Amino acid sequence: MPIRVLCTGPKGVEYMKEFKLAVLGGGSSYAPELIDGIAKRYLNGEFHAREIVMVDVPEGRERMETVASFTRRMLAKQGVPCEIKTTLDRREAFDGASFVISQIRVGGMLARQRDEHIPLKHGLIGQETTGAGGFANALRTIPVSLEFAREMKDACPEAWLLNFSNPAGLVTEALTRYADIKTFGLCNVPIGIKMGIAKALGVEPSRVSTDVSGLNHLSFVTGIWVDGKDVTGAIFDSPLFEHYLKVEKYGPEMGRFLRRLRLIPASYLFYHWCAERALKEQLADISGEKGSRADEVMRIEKDLFEIYAKPENDSLPEILKKRGGAYYSDVALSCISAIVNNKPAVEALNVVNRGAVPGIKADSVVEVSCMVDGRGPHPLAQKPLPQEVLGLVQQVKAYENLAVQAAVTGDIETAFFALLNHPLLPGADTVRLVLRDILEANKDHLPQFAGKSL
Amino acid sequence: MPIRVLCTGPKGVEYMKEFKLAVLGGGSSYAPELIDGIAKRYLNGEFHAREIVMVDVPEGRERMETVASFTRRMLAKQGVPCEIKTTLDRREAFDGASFVISQIRVGGMLARQRDEHIPLKHGLIGQETTGAGGFANALRTIPVSLEFAREMKDACPEAWLLNFSNPAGLVTEALTRYADIKTFGLCNVPIGIKMGIAKALGVEPSRVSTDVSGLNHLSFVTGIWVDGKDVTGAIFDSPLFEHYLKVEKYGPEMGRFLRRLRLIPASYLFYHWCAERALKEQLADISGEKGSRADEVMRIEKDLFEIYAKPENDSLPEILKKRGGAYYSDVALSCISAIVNNKPAVEALNVVNRGAVPGIKADSVVEVSCMVDGRGPHPLAQKPLPQEVLGLVQQVKAYENLAVQAAVTGDIETAFFALLNHPLLPGADTVRLVLRDILEANKDHLPQFAGKSL
Amino acid sequence: MPIRVLCTGPKGVEYMKEFKLAVLGGGSSYAPELIDGIAKRYLNGEFHAREIVMVDVPEGRERMETVASFTRRMLAKQGVPCEIKTTLDRREAFDGASFVISQIRVGGMLARQRDEHIPLKHGLIGQETTGAGGFANALRTIPVSLEFAREMKDACPEAWLLNFSNPAGLVTEALTRYADIKTFGLCNVPIGIKMGIAKALGVEPSRVSTDVSGLNHLSFVTGIWVDGKDVTGAIFDSPLFEHYLKVEKYGPEMGRFLRRLRLIPASYLFYHWCAERALKEQLADISGEKGSRADEVMRIEKDLFEIYAKPENDSLPEILKKRGGAYYSDVALSCISAIVNNKPAVEALNVVNRGAVPGIKADSVVEVSCMVDGRGPHPLAQKPLPQEVLGLVQQVKAYENLAVQAAVTGDIETAFFALLNHPLLPGADTVRLVLRDILEANKDHLPQFAGKSL
Amino acid sequence: MPIRVLCTGPKGVEYMKEFKLAVLGGGSSYAPELIDGIAKRYLNGEFHAREIVMVDVPEGRERMETVASFTRRMLAKQGVPCEIKTTLDRREAFDGASFVISQIRVGGMLARQRDEHIPLKHGLIGQETTGAGGFANALRTIPVSLEFAREMKDACPEAWLLNFSNPAGLVTEALTRYADIKTFGLCNVPIGIKMGIAKALGVEPSRVSTDVSGLNHLSFVTGIWVDGKDVTGAIFDSPLFEHYLKVEKYGPEMGRFLRRLRLIPASYLFYHWCAERALKEQLADISGEKGSRADEVMRIEKDLFEIYAKPENDSLPEILKKRGGAYYSDVALSCISAIVNNKPAVEALNVVNRGAVPGIKADSVVEVSCMVDGRGPHPLAQKPLPQEVLGLVQQVKAYENLAVQAAVTGDIETAFFALLNHPLLPGADTVRLVLRDILEANKDHLPQFAGKSL
Repeated sequence: MPIRVLCTGPKGVEYMKEFKLAVLGGGSSYAPELIDGIAKRYLNGEFHAREIVMVDVPEGRERMETVASFTRRMLAKQGVPCEIKTTLDRREAFDGASFVISQIRVGGMLARQRDEHIPLKHGLIGQETTGAGGFANALRTIPVSLEFAREMKDACPEAWLLNFSNPAGLVTEALTRYADIKTFGLCNVPIGIKMGIAKALGVEPSRVSTDVSGLNHLSFVTGIWVDGKDVTGAIFDSPLFEHYLKVEKYGPEMGRFLRRLRLIPASYLFYHWCAERALKEQLADISGEKGSRADEVMRIEKDLFEIYAKPENDSLPEILKKRGGAYYSDVALSCISAIVNNKPAVEALNVVNRGAVPGIKADSVVEVSCMVDGRGPHPLAQKPLPQEVLGLVQQVKAYENLAVQAAVTGDIETAFFALLNHPLLPGADTVRLVLRDILEANKDHLPQFAGKSL
Repeated sequence: MPIRVLCTGPKGVEYMKEFKLAVLGGGSSYAPELIDGIAKRYLNGEFHAREIVMVDVPEGRERMETVASFTRRMLAKQGVPCEIKTTLDRREAFDGASFVISQIRVGGMLARQRDEHIPLKHGLIGQETTGAGGFANALRTIPVSLEFAREMKDACPEAWLLNFSNPAGLVTEALTRYADIKTFGLCNVPIGIKMGIAKALGVEPSRVSTDVSGLNHLSFVTGIWVDGKDVTGAIFDSPLFEHYLKVEKYGPEMGRFLRRLRLIPASYLFYHWCAERALKEQLADISGEKGSRADEVMRIEKDLFEIYAKPENDSLPEILKKRGGAYYSDVALSCISAIVNNKPAVEALNVVNRGAVPGIKADSVVEVSCMVDGRGPHPLAQKPLPQEVLGLVQQVKAYENLAVQAAVTGDIETAFFALLNHPLLPGADTVRLVLRDILEANKDHLPQFAGKSL
Repeated sequence: MPIRVLCTGPKGVEYMKEFKLAVLGGGSSYAPELIDGIAKRYLNGEFHAREIVMVDVPEGRERMETVASFTRRMLAKQGVPCEIKTTLDRREAFDGASFVISQIRVGGMLARQRDEHIPLKHGLIGQETTGAGGFANALRTIPVSLEFAREMKDACPEAWLLNFSNPAGLVTEALTRYADIKTFGLCNVPIGIKMGIAKALGVEPSRVSTDVSGLNHLSFVTGIWVDGKDVTGAIFDSPLFEHYLKVEKYGPEMGRFLRRLRLIPASYLFYHWCAERALKEQLADISGEKGSRADEVMRIEKDLFEIYAKPENDSLPEILKKRGGAYYSDVALSCISAIVNNKPAVEALNVVNRGAVPGIKADSVVEVSCMVDGRGPHPLAQKPLPQEVLGLVQQVKAYENLAVQAAVTGDIETAFFALLNHPLLPGADTVRLVLRDILEANKDHLPQFAGKSL
Repeated sequence: MPIRVLCTGPKGVEYMKEFKLAVLGGGSSYAPELIDGIAKRYLNGEFHAREIVMVDVPEGRERMETVASFTRRMLAKQGVPCEIKTTLDRREAFDGASFVISQIRVGGMLARQRDEHIPLKHGLIGQETTGAGGFANALRTIPVSLEFAREMKDACPEAWLLNFSNPAGLVTEALTRYADIKTFGLCNVPIGIKMGIAKALGVEPSRVSTDVSGLNHLSFVTGIWVDGKDVTGAIFDSPLFEHYLKVEKYGPEMGRFLRRLRLIPASYLFYHWCAERALKEQLADISGEKGSRADEVMRIEKDLFEIYAKPENDSLPEILKKRGGAYYSDVALSCISAIVNNKPAVEALNVVNRGAVPGIKADSVVEVSCMVDGRGPHPLAQKPLPQEVLGLVQQVKAYENLAVQAAVTGDIETAFFALLNHPLLPGADTVRLVLRDILEANKDHLPQFAGKSL
């Protein structure tokens, strides 16, 4: 089922591209948002994802079926003829697919909970994408992702793998380095900042464009345009700036400093620059009712799945917004649309650098503004990041490359050096302790480290 | 008159952008093609160049008025309400303009004739953009272009200067380095190759995309996609390849070599790689009836202006195609459309490198695939050129940077070193002789070298 | 008094070079070691530092006079005709000097004590060259060093400034960037590692050579040769390795990791890689009798000056070794010998990179193996550092460049970003508090920050 | 027979290093100069090349025996106990050798004659190291050199190969890329310039040092020091400059231009910058009595071997100086001395770049000032070459890399592209013709191209 088949679309759209899409982690609570976006793209004639195959692990089957039924009702209500299928057999999902979206969580929400809790035990920030938690997540997710990629190589060698699975930068680094498929990584952080700017200015998001440069969850908006007019200076000099920076979070003085740099950082910079406060907040959360973010998400997901399960519900619930990940499907569907229609769009994506982000090696994955068209994403050459942040980016990239290598090889010393390079880890003693805990707690998901210890 | 004003367009196009455009070198025989393209863009609702001001030097006034009258008839016939004005006063043209197109020829066709004839006297290829002829052209054109740019800075500081004036790479290098306006350079060579590919494959040009990397008139297509599918290998391995390579020109064996490199060069590479044959052909032409290319163009232009002048003529003449420069207005208008509508398009343009072409300094101008949107062009990071051509590109870039410096400073030694660096110049003795001839023959147009000699 | 004057030397040395040397910080307890080395170089005929002018601030006068008298007795005993002078007037010291050695401590030992104590108050490592303490030291020392340099430019423009003043990497970065004299920075760490290797192997130090690459106090030995034979592998695979690595300090497992990297780090890496343990040790020291390193050094210096002051003492006391800084004069005098005799020697020095250390900008100061001859030091091009350490080096270099800029401009935000970039600082909140304390505690020595606050 | 054995030397030299040396191309007319230098180094106690094994091809046996007998008389006269052996068996020569000097000429002087004559037939400069002639020489010499290297890897894996065989830059590039031995390339051009400077200034050569950067036969002196004092400016501004530039050769105006660049080029730049004149001179020579350089050298060698053959002759003949290659043995023996004594010296050598010459890839061989000690040569990081020459250097390096690849693989298309990249070749037609002639004329020495044709 190739992309290029044309079909007649709704309401005056005479022809549009149709294709098959596979969703790894189909039981994700996010999935309805994605399906909703697909429906909209069908209705406005952009493309027709005629067949959508959700695939999940056996433990996720029930959730997946719930999501599938719910989204079928959503589509039916809107008169959108996409067919939703479910399977536990990836091969079935991949056969003939033009796109595969990966949004898996190896070990499920309980593994995420451990990623958040273990570091806290050692006085470290607990987070599923950065620090020791993100590292554990990478160790689990990278081998599984490479296995998918090998299967895709057989079943649908021309298909694109859109990777949302976290830590997205590291997983994409692994995929580009060790797999032989077409792939790129996505994140909703850059589009979130852009949407925030649009909202603050009261303009249509399509009129706003931003230059994004850095790494996943450590990228920076270095320029802002409205209707092609450079408004970077104007925005940084106006009180609007605080809006999308959420500067109160960083503390009043940081606002002044960030304004001077003319940079809007991904919100995850907070973990690096305001590590003390971030840790304090997490420790407070975890010892109170709120719990860690995983605890919170589990509560939200419980509510969400209750809603999805009710046969009378057939539209996106309001509380989905609390789940995080806003706009995530927008980026993915914008890229799919640009690819199937071979019509250029600009999105910030995780791709091989090729020199687009100066100071980072050409063969490393970066998060950078890309032009996407039928060929996929192509990085736009960026001006250098200021030294105020470039050193951190270089240090974190060293960590990322080592972490990917550790995840692929299962080499314990590489794992040690990877963590030792992470700016949120204070030194070798802590690295040793937290690494032991990670390997022990995740042993069911880390066959590559079986029998190895520090 | 800002770009952003919206107006009601024709045939169901409710709103579109309108703006003023200035055309430097309005008396160019190409101008009708540009106006024709503008008319088409109006009719399909892309944009409305409400006011088009042609400006030229006094010697070009008559030609300009002929073109203006002719194009007014063309527009009237199609019912397009663009207003064509003419002036000798650049200031008047620049005031309120959103775009300025520069397509000047300092010294006119006679200067070009000299650029082609002087090198031939010394056994060198005579050409208006490369070799000693292109160098002379750069010396004349760069100071005048910088003067325009300074005037624009005053009169329309937000306007874009689209530079077609040859040698386009060198003039754009000078503009980006020494002027403080928004500018980029254009050339019809990359689009010509793309169009040739589309024709050979029998597909719509919009379905084809190419990766372009190098310098103006020394760029290379390094990848070809149809509908986003990589067909580079398929094309190079098929007999189609010869079509757009015009391989018979290079000789049968060169085809084999070029196929191996997986590169389609700009046709001007012929002057470098097949210098002997190019020279032989030029010497044959010049001693026969055909004359040099300038002689030929002058004959064509004579015919063209006769057609333009006849009051009954109101559509583009067939023979305009012989004039060369096919698709030149397509590139320009595609860029203008992308800018005014803030809608991404991909074009190969001359812009500051920023690392997009590896092996060339980040602050030098290159010809490279760019994404253009409301902000103007943004270079797409390219893979490295193979060493089979990179050395030549680096050598020519050294020449270009020195030539620009010579044109701006009027320093005779820099001029000498510039030419000595040109691969088509055999050595210092010839450089000295040809440089003397150039300075003497062009002295009316080279005030910066007044009183200086070797 | 130029370098090139020849004089008759002792014991069969017919002719040798003589010159004048100025020592900034002449009252340093180290100075006798330097003078002792100078005596040895005279006696073996390498060079004759005929006139040695010690210069110090008024508060240091007494110590300086003590040192001067003591070293005069040392020289007299050995029959070395170097003349020791003292002055408070730098100009007098600089006039006619061929070399200036800077070993100052702005604010004296009490300032160092504060550099060590203030960070500890905030739970940070307190150290005079790295972390917040090193930063404070840089803020004090850089402006004074630049003042020296300006005076030298007038008084002895051809003289070399050998900078030992800490933090040596940052002060040298400032001198190469903001002053216009011949200068380089020195440190005894790389030579200490080399001496340790020689001792462990039981070979003459002159038979050992090492490749050194990185930054001051963050450099790495990346290769070891004995008699020109590469013994790197052999050494790392032998138990000898632990000797000069002092691996017990890093913990048993770190030894395994470091062995794998084939790197011997400067001992200061301990502060980065074993930050927890370093902090624990310092906190224990400071709360016990030992106190901080400054407290310890003050006790040693008290003893030393008592010895220096006794008229009967005329040779280097044993306890000088406890003072630290072993071999420091060896590096300096080896460089001076190479320069005055125009005879190549290899030393690890702090110089402008020029691409010798890949991954660090060409115009930044690095610590790297250099060939020194009459022209001064010339960096030897190094192989890339492994990613296990390069990220840290890049991050610390970003800190260094910002710290230098802060010290020169007195800009509070640059100071903030500098510290925020230091890997030993956990985040903005701590940066703010510790920066306030530093500015307040050092205000007498930081005129550039007068009236500025966070 | 390892390097490190110590022996008692002559005249008060108690201990010195002794070793075995193999000379490939022992029948070279240069060899006596080398042996003379070895004798001098023995007498001044630097080292003792106790056993010198000359090896040559059967055709060279007679010349080799003549040289051997002559040099034995030379050594005997001076009382130097080096033993000169001869063999046709390379293995015998390599066994136990510490150094191997390669100064071969594959195909002998007749092949060189062809290298000089074939290009002239096509209107191209005929030269054994550059242009088409140097290319033919590379095709012949590289495979043989790699064979030597493989044998050395077995027989004397710790030995150094000092490569003088021309084209030295290309042969060394091949050796560093495709062989696994310790090697570097040498040339007498940089030392010749240095000697010329010393002579013009009337100072001892040891007081002069130069910065050399570029490629073999395309290197540039970018700085000059006397006794460590920078005299670059002074020299270029004095009439002395013309002395070592031999500026009359370049023409009066070129002197002005070169002076401005502050560069002294290797004399071979004449072939690039003054190609017309070089060609004219060669054509005049070849059609007259003088003949090509090979013809001239053959006449000189005839005279030389007559002298060598006379039993009464036992010292270096005056006419050896006409042979060219002055100081060549000085560079080699200075490097050997630095290596065996592990005592730093500075020489301009052909080594892997490592970033020392900016703008050339880190893994390519360059000619650059190196510090040589027991470990061999280590490149000194250089400042960038000016753009007036860097483009040419980059272009020639592209040629070199392709030529090496062609020589190793025997790939005809790579050979074609290599020549097409050479700045002295005008274009594809000539490349084709000259390449055919080269392959045909050298077919006995180019097994890698057997059966291949254009």
